[in-house]
Amino acid sequence: MTPALPSESPAPRRRGRPPRTEGAADAPGARDRILAAARNEFAERGYDKTSIRGIAKAAGVDPALVHHYFGTKDQVFGAAVELILAPAMGAPDAVHGSREGAGERMARFIFGVWENPVTRLPLLAVMRSALTNEAAAAVLRGLIERRLLLRMAEELDVPDPEFRAQLAAGHIIGIAMLRYVIGMEPMASASVDDIVAVVGPTLQRYLTDDTI
Amino acid sequence: MTPALPSESPAPRRRGRPPRTEGAADAPGARDRILAAARNEFAERGYDKTSIRGIAKAAGVDPALVHHYFGTKDQVFGAAVELILAPAMGAPDAVHGSREGAGERMARFIFGVWENPVTRLPLLAVMRSALTNEAAAAVLRGLIERRLLLRMAEELDVPDPEFRAQLAAGHIIGIAMLRYVIGMEPMASASVDDIVAVVGPTLQRYLTDDTI
Repeated sequence: MTPALPSESPAPRRRGRPPRTEGAADAPGARDRILAAARNEFAERGYDKTSIRGIAKAAGVDPALVHHYFGTKDQVFGAAVELILAPAMGAPDAVHGSREGAGERMARFIFGVWENPVTRLPLLAVMRSALTNEAAAAVLRGLIERRLLLRMAEELDVPDPEFRAQLAAGHIIGIAMLRYVIGMEPMASASVDDIVAVVGPTLQRYLTDDTI
Repeated sequence: MTPALPSESPAPRRRGRPPRTEGAADAPGARDRILAAARNEFAERGYDKTSIRGIAKAAGVDPALVHHYFGTKDQVFGAAVELILAPAMGAPDAVHGSREGAGERMARFIFGVWENPVTRLPLLAVMRSALTNEAAAAVLRGLIERRLLLRMAEELDVPDPEFRAQLAAGHIIGIAMLRYVIGMEPMASASVDDIVAVVGPTLQRYLTDDTI
């Protein structure tokens, strides 16, 4: 939850020590700038080596402003991960609608996110942070549960929809690890079409078969 | 390749500066002690923060001896990863034999390795190193290719056996990420039997169906 700003109107100055960049608290886009800096810092340095101070410096603001907009380090991380995961949030929409082809739609959608380096690199940074730090893993877990898993389960008319969604997501995450992180051939050079052609039916079974 | 020791017999001292621990070069088990120290250092600190010096200190030997037995840092890392991956090397044997049930045997075998924290934690450390450092990813890739993938492909009587093996392995790696790293429920608390019951048929298709 974002703590409320004491004053939302641009004119009155806050009492006490002024922010490092005069007027930054009131500058439009300060919150967005902090969030973008947080995403970049976490993506480049990882969870452990990122600090509120480092984010503030990258955004050109006082650390107090980072706390003000976002709260603790874990809350900043959560906001940054939300931003990084945003492209993946369309997965429930991909599955929505006709049961036929749902598996292929999900596979194609998620591979689209992984194939684009602009969306892929921050996702890998989030995976790395989760592998390195339990607090980061917990933040990621909470976000996926609240923002992705529940919505995905709503789209699936099968028993144990959360388990089904995780079987499907797990499959694609693992293929992504081989393809983009370890770079194993032939997976690394296969076309997305070839991968979707074989993985799509697997996801179709997980997402739509009444008994698996 | 292990460079040859100038002298294998315990009695003659090496010329020049003596090793930090007198006689360590000749002590039985020095190589094993170094390898164990390397595995622990890489597992705890990760690839970037591990050094030949740190490994030598942990093993109680001179850094020159580490170079002597293993070579460069990447070669030490390769040896440590080979040790860490050793439990997983039985996967081709699990698939060997009757086509029927091959998928379930592979799933059960690999989950067995992941379920045991003694074998799981070093594997996660290797994944973390690969996610963090390209050189580490390249070492892991080469090892899996030479020691695991080729042998697995030999067991599979289907077109594109390497691709099939990677579809199967990718599926399990991704489930492992959700279950052990991110800790997503219900996957994290599901029984291995329940997971194998649904993933086994998927792997069966990948490993044995002539057309997928």
